[in-house]
Amino acid sequence: MAVRLPELPLMHPIKGVEVGTCSAGIKTPGRKDLVIFKLSENSSVAGVFTRNAFCAAPVQIARAHLANGPRYLLINTGNANAGTGPSGHTDALACCEALAREAGVEVGQVLPFSTGVIGEPLPVQRIIPALPAALAALREAGWPEAASGIMTTDTLPKGASLAFDVDGVTYRITGISKGAGMIKPDMATMLGFVATDAAVAPEVLQQLLSIVSNRSFNRITIDGDTSTNDSCILMASGAAGNPPLERAEGALYEALLEALTRVFQQLAQAIVRDGEGATKFVTVRVEQAATAQEALDVAYTIAHSPLVKTALFASDPNWGRVLAAVGRAGLENLDVSRIQIWLDEVQIVTDGGRSSSYRESDGQRVMDQEEILIRVDLGRGNACEQIWTTDLSHEYVRINAEYRS
Amino acid sequence: MAVRLPELPLMHPIKGVEVGTCSAGIKTPGRKDLVIFKLSENSSVAGVFTRNAFCAAPVQIARAHLANGPRYLLINTGNANAGTGPSGHTDALACCEALAREAGVEVGQVLPFSTGVIGEPLPVQRIIPALPAALAALREAGWPEAASGIMTTDTLPKGASLAFDVDGVTYRITGISKGAGMIKPDMATMLGFVATDAAVAPEVLQQLLSIVSNRSFNRITIDGDTSTNDSCILMASGAAGNPPLERAEGALYEALLEALTRVFQQLAQAIVRDGEGATKFVTVRVEQAATAQEALDVAYTIAHSPLVKTALFASDPNWGRVLAAVGRAGLENLDVSRIQIWLDEVQIVTDGGRSSSYRESDGQRVMDQEEILIRVDLGRGNACEQIWTTDLSHEYVRINAEYRS
Repeated sequence: MAVRLPELPLMHPIKGVEVGTCSAGIKTPGRKDLVIFKLSENSSVAGVFTRNAFCAAPVQIARAHLANGPRYLLINTGNANAGTGPSGHTDALACCEALAREAGVEVGQVLPFSTGVIGEPLPVQRIIPALPAALAALREAGWPEAASGIMTTDTLPKGASLAFDVDGVTYRITGISKGAGMIKPDMATMLGFVATDAAVAPEVLQQLLSIVSNRSFNRITIDGDTSTNDSCILMASGAAGNPPLERAEGALYEALLEALTRVFQQLAQAIVRDGEGATKFVTVRVEQAATAQEALDVAYTIAHSPLVKTALFASDPNWGRVLAAVGRAGLENLDVSRIQIWLDEVQIVTDGGRSSSYRESDGQRVMDQEEILIRVDLGRGNACEQIWTTDLSHEYVRINAEYRS
Repeated sequence: MAVRLPELPLMHPIKGVEVGTCSAGIKTPGRKDLVIFKLSENSSVAGVFTRNAFCAAPVQIARAHLANGPRYLLINTGNANAGTGPSGHTDALACCEALAREAGVEVGQVLPFSTGVIGEPLPVQRIIPALPAALAALREAGWPEAASGIMTTDTLPKGASLAFDVDGVTYRITGISKGAGMIKPDMATMLGFVATDAAVAPEVLQQLLSIVSNRSFNRITIDGDTSTNDSCILMASGAAGNPPLERAEGALYEALLEALTRVFQQLAQAIVRDGEGATKFVTVRVEQAATAQEALDVAYTIAHSPLVKTALFASDPNWGRVLAAVGRAGLENLDVSRIQIWLDEVQIVTDGGRSSSYRESDGQRVMDQEEILIRVDLGRGNACEQIWTTDLSHEYVRINAEYRS
């Protein structure tokens, strides 16, 4: 079950970035569940992490190690190492130390990431013995295997990749992501790893990551549940040979921003398309809001409403539920008589009431689609935001009543 | 499907308050769907209403008419008259006018209430001809029929009733409520009507209603969707003959407050017990919060989490999902190492991590129950709040994918 989720595209290798995947038997024997990224010296690395106060031990360590010139990323699925207290911290560090020893780097140059069940001890005794196999698997063409290696309840691997030219130099960007439930990222998705061969100074890279995260992973929601382990890493190897991008301006900066936005949006939307039990891919766009924040408040209230989500599942053009969600979004002094709402191009609410031109058959035609745009015009300003979400189906309940996340 | 929802208790008639129910054929031919309350002269009436910006036409009218010495309440199910624009207002007023004419009172003394489908025109042509039958049915013992007459997706009628003595005078309180979905009241439930024969000045009655609403209807949530039609009315006929209660103090005030709290909590909890698809009745209590608001923020984040709700449905002691919900509730400077969490008396989180004493079998025993207490101690103040909610089941999705609310 996934809504028009594309197959993994051609994944351009990124020079200076090697990826290795192996099986450590963390949760399911034989499953590929351990991924290592190796970065060439002088790479830049930026990261954004969950704002959940209960952030997992690996998130705390990865955030702390980000400034040390990271050389390795160590990712496991099958166990989130979250809610595991001080021993979770010790366990994550033990894995980093073992990898640093094998690879000949400092422990502070290893960033750990975990995803899977919350609240169970990390099986260090299964991860450490598997490290040599993951290191042996390292290669620049290793992205597709890694896309599968970081999956949990995902039904398909998720990747995006493109190349673009600036001033006669070809640059490449490749990334993978995972996540299908507990998705309402707050700074990042469950896990996303994106690399480019452009040379970019760390502070510019961090700035780019913040901007494109806010256009992608921070604009999706499946169930409103912000995970304890959200992490997104952007790496720049510099292998393309350009003079390092030191400032947030110029042709390369603009091209990189646009290309990264495309890759990040593809990765983020892939998570929504593969949302647990998803049968619809829904864009919620709120226009003419007074501020970006109130546009987001309205968009998320619609996207999180169980009644809107079940109507989407039923392909029911139940516009009253959308209207009720807008009304409870908490906006001060909302003049409902200025509100317009559309399903795709079909206007359902005009000046706060049912559109006189609206015919149920038109609404039904849109709702029968797999991809739907809900567009709300608040008529009170110039801010506009859009987010992506899914419906709420029987399958969502089944998955989450059966899976221990 | 309903979690230990008690049958309608003995409903004490309230002297000075008559209730009439009839069938107007609003949505389903033959169903009792129209209820009228008649109040004796000099009754006091207090009301609280939804804060949804798209509040329905009848809500706007009822709120405006509250100050006019209301004599009649006119309630229909099957149609919410919400999102109906100016014609919705005209339609609601037309029904009030027709009733006022029949009954010989002013139109401003009639309070209208509607519940049911949003966004369809109110069938005035079916309501007005049914008014004489509802008036003919008026009687002080009419409460049980009215409890059924205001239902929508409710599986059972909901009522509460009690008597208490102060200074040798016996007072009675009787009330009914309805609601099962689109339930996260913000000032009131979908619909609640409660009457007492005590004589209470209007401003004291309004104050009592605010207090007890905040202990009951404003502390429940099923799906987080605040309705456009939430209304709760408290009536005091004065037929008990006491000197009118003019101040918020004294033995009668205290007794009334306590008795109203009991009735209101029973009515509010009945809505949760009858929540759409509910298989669990869950109390979420947050203790040692810095403020009441942050206690509520944490409690509602837990209660609205689809992952917590599906774990409750599955009877899965998945404490990691509760912990993740606490972590994303948006509290400033939350020190997770001070947090304790219990399922009933079983401590699952100690100082922010899994309790060393916790055994899965203990958690399982609690989760297998139909009634569960999730208790969170934030360790940062003295505020405490509790709310009541349900799980998220297949049946919730089925009902809301099929019913046009």
